[in-house]
Amino acid sequence: MTPNTARRRETSRRAILTAAFELLQEIGYAKVSIEGIAARAGVGKQTIYRWWPSKGAVIFDAFLMLSEGTEGEPPTLPDTGDLAADLTLVLRATVEEMNDPRYEQPMRALATEIALDPELAAAYAERLDGPLKEAKRQRLRSAQQAGQLAEGIDLGVAVDMIWGPVLNRWLQRSGPLTAEYADLVVATALDGLRPR
Amino acid sequence: MTPNTARRRETSRRAILTAAFELLQEIGYAKVSIEGIAARAGVGKQTIYRWWPSKGAVIFDAFLMLSEGTEGEPPTLPDTGDLAADLTLVLRATVEEMNDPRYEQPMRALATEIALDPELAAAYAERLDGPLKEAKRQRLRSAQQAGQLAEGIDLGVAVDMIWGPVLNRWLQRSGPLTAEYADLVVATALDGLRPR
Repeated sequence: MTPNTARRRETSRRAILTAAFELLQEIGYAKVSIEGIAARAGVGKQTIYRWWPSKGAVIFDAFLMLSEGTEGEPPTLPDTGDLAADLTLVLRATVEEMNDPRYEQPMRALATEIALDPELAAAYAERLDGPLKEAKRQRLRSAQQAGQLAEGIDLGVAVDMIWGPVLNRWLQRSGPLTAEYADLVVATALDGLRPR
Repeated sequence: MTPNTARRRETSRRAILTAAFELLQEIGYAKVSIEGIAARAGVGKQTIYRWWPSKGAVIFDAFLMLSEGTEGEPPTLPDTGDLAADLTLVLRATVEEMNDPRYEQPMRALATEIALDPELAAAYAERLDGPLKEAKRQRLRSAQQAGQLAEGIDLGVAVDMIWGPVLNRWLQRSGPLTAEYADLVVATALDGLRPR
């Protein structure tokens, strides 16, 4: 492949993924089609079928593109030394993103596809959620080394305890998803339910 | 309505809801149709349309029938005085149900419909999840009165912290859902992440 061909391919790939994400926001997962993505991206639909086996695969890669840093570096959480403040900041940002109408519909589409499709769930766990979870565990590990977290706790369970309630409240619409709720979750997870 | 008519109506209603639930287990939400439910239940499809506006509404009522006690009494959690033991017992039972192939597909269908449909989510929150959540809060309230839970905690957040991680791990398939995981979640929620 010449450098020019590679550049053109990358330009087409980005146009396709951007089109897929925009359509997801505008018309919802059920109505997005390969034909629609191709028309919006200005490519032939055979180009899309050559690179992706299904609509779900295109949309998954669109999320992956969105989550990538500019240089593809792995995600990290802020580490100011104040664990509660750092977690509160990050969890509030998660809540804001979930309440953002630009992201809500695409994220719900991805989450429900994952709930119904074990293969997509495995790809999501490995490629999208995996690096994020590792960044969360890493922040907790650093707190644990600083003596701010109990020694014996399972960091995976700790991550689930902080992010699980918010994800679940969002996905199942089981209550208002506010910054105050995020703050309460962080404080309650750190202190625990038993009296101190 | 004569007593006989009322009895026949109730028999038809139960046959329809049972048929809906069985079909959901066998062929999945997407393939269930009003026609299919009517055929399995031995009623005309007009009977179904007279009582329910949509397939989603029938299926919702099928879940509601399943969750009702024999006398329609509200659900309660065990209260032996040992909070950790009671929560562990209940959360392990939840995990078992989620892993039971008879329930998994119907529960995923309901959960994804809720994720995509705010009206169904509101009905679920009020009629199905509401009484269950109140039973969970009631068990925690009783522990709080016994001095086993911190005074200031928000019982709703406490419920989310115990059940949220399990629900989320199940729905998003983000890891193995085992009795050991349930035990760890209860222990970690009670103790909290900070050292004691």
